[in-house]
Amino acid sequence: MEATSSKAERTRHLIVEKSAHLFNLKGYAGTSMQDIMAATGLTKGGIYGHFESKEEIALAAFEHAAGVVTQLLAEKIAAKITATAKLQALLSFYKTYLIAPPVQGGCPVLNTSVEADDTNPLLRASVVRVLNRLHKSVANIVKLGITQGEFKASADAERFSILFVSMVEGGVMVSKAYGDPKYLATVLQQLELMIDQELKF
Amino acid sequence: MEATSSKAERTRHLIVEKSAHLFNLKGYAGTSMQDIMAATGLTKGGIYGHFESKEEIALAAFEHAAGVVTQLLAEKIAAKITATAKLQALLSFYKTYLIAPPVQGGCPVLNTSVEADDTNPLLRASVVRVLNRLHKSVANIVKLGITQGEFKASADAERFSILFVSMVEGGVMVSKAYGDPKYLATVLQQLELMIDQELKF
Ligand SMILES: [Mg+2]
Ligand SMILES: [Mg+2]
Repeated sequence: MEATSSKAERTRHLIVEKSAHLFNLKGYAGTSMQDIMAATGLTKGGIYGHFESKEEIALAAFEHAAGVVTQLLAEKIAAKITATAKLQALLSFYKTYLIAPPVQGGCPVLNTSVEADDTNPLLRASVVRVLNRLHKSVANIVKLGITQGEFKASADAERFSILFVSMVEGGVMVSKAYGDPKYLATVLQQLELMIDQELKF
Repeated sequence: MEATSSKAERTRHLIVEKSAHLFNLKGYAGTSMQDIMAATGLTKGGIYGHFESKEEIALAAFEHAAGVVTQLLAEKIAAKITATAKLQALLSFYKTYLIAPPVQGGCPVLNTSVEADDTNPLLRASVVRVLNRLHKSVANIVKLGITQGEFKASADAERFSILFVSMVEGGVMVSKAYGDPKYLATVLQQLELMIDQELKF
């Protein structure tokens, strides 16, 4: 929070941030206005002064939660020079994803996607925008690797990015179900193998 | 429905089946008793005559939905002789999974896992039992392939089963988010490649 942000902005941010954790843990349908009131210490009127509906909070909260994750990913990617190191930094990020999730409740893209895909077109559209961003980030690293001469010219950036995102999300889901990082770790190890065998010279 | 089933059994089955579709589409928290009443044509009292709580309906509905999917998978596996053909039959099953899902709303294991992992220990335990069954089915096919001399003795049945289940679930999630089978198809193609390269002689 910047020191110059107005009280209204701070209150709005408080609602979005607390709701992001609640929604990611309990789902949108599973979170009541009472839950948001309890988490923020605001009255219903205090919340509806900033948002027209629970759906509007849901959209802002998902965008906040997804933004936290994609911002962290962007930092990990930017901190490395080679494409191989950038991809490995992503794998390392996901290695600790379950133990210390940036947003309580695990992956907001996974959680929101499953809940919204058949029920909430606006929220689903927001999920698709974040998935596009994730796919593009990974594909751009592969393309960089080709340009920098680290990866084969035949490396298929789009295909690898689809596999990367799907495998990580599936591994997160299974490991969260079991409460055991083993499943995600196996998936990440396979992705490491694929970087070595399919991308690198 | 067997002709000999009692009216009580038929009513119970109706509640479970209709709820399974509702829950799989809208989530447990997103489905109200009113939704179940509308789908079954029963009164609240008529429903609570068979179940003590919405949570009890949720458990029975998830077990029914997961049973529908695992039964279909078991039939696909049983219909083939070789381990390779059994694994390919699973991949074919998932190829049409989004276009004609056995239970509306997609994969009940994925949907229920994401909703229950942080909120409902009983339902999560039920998800884990189904995941165990899925992992075991795939691992057993790999072991059979080794015994039958189709697969390398070094093929890692547990590792492959973890990758198979995580990758399929992740591919289902991403393809459902986009409403485009391309993502799941890419994942299934990669699994086919892994059967050829990692399992087969
Ligand atoms: Mg859904
Ligand atoms: Mg969850």
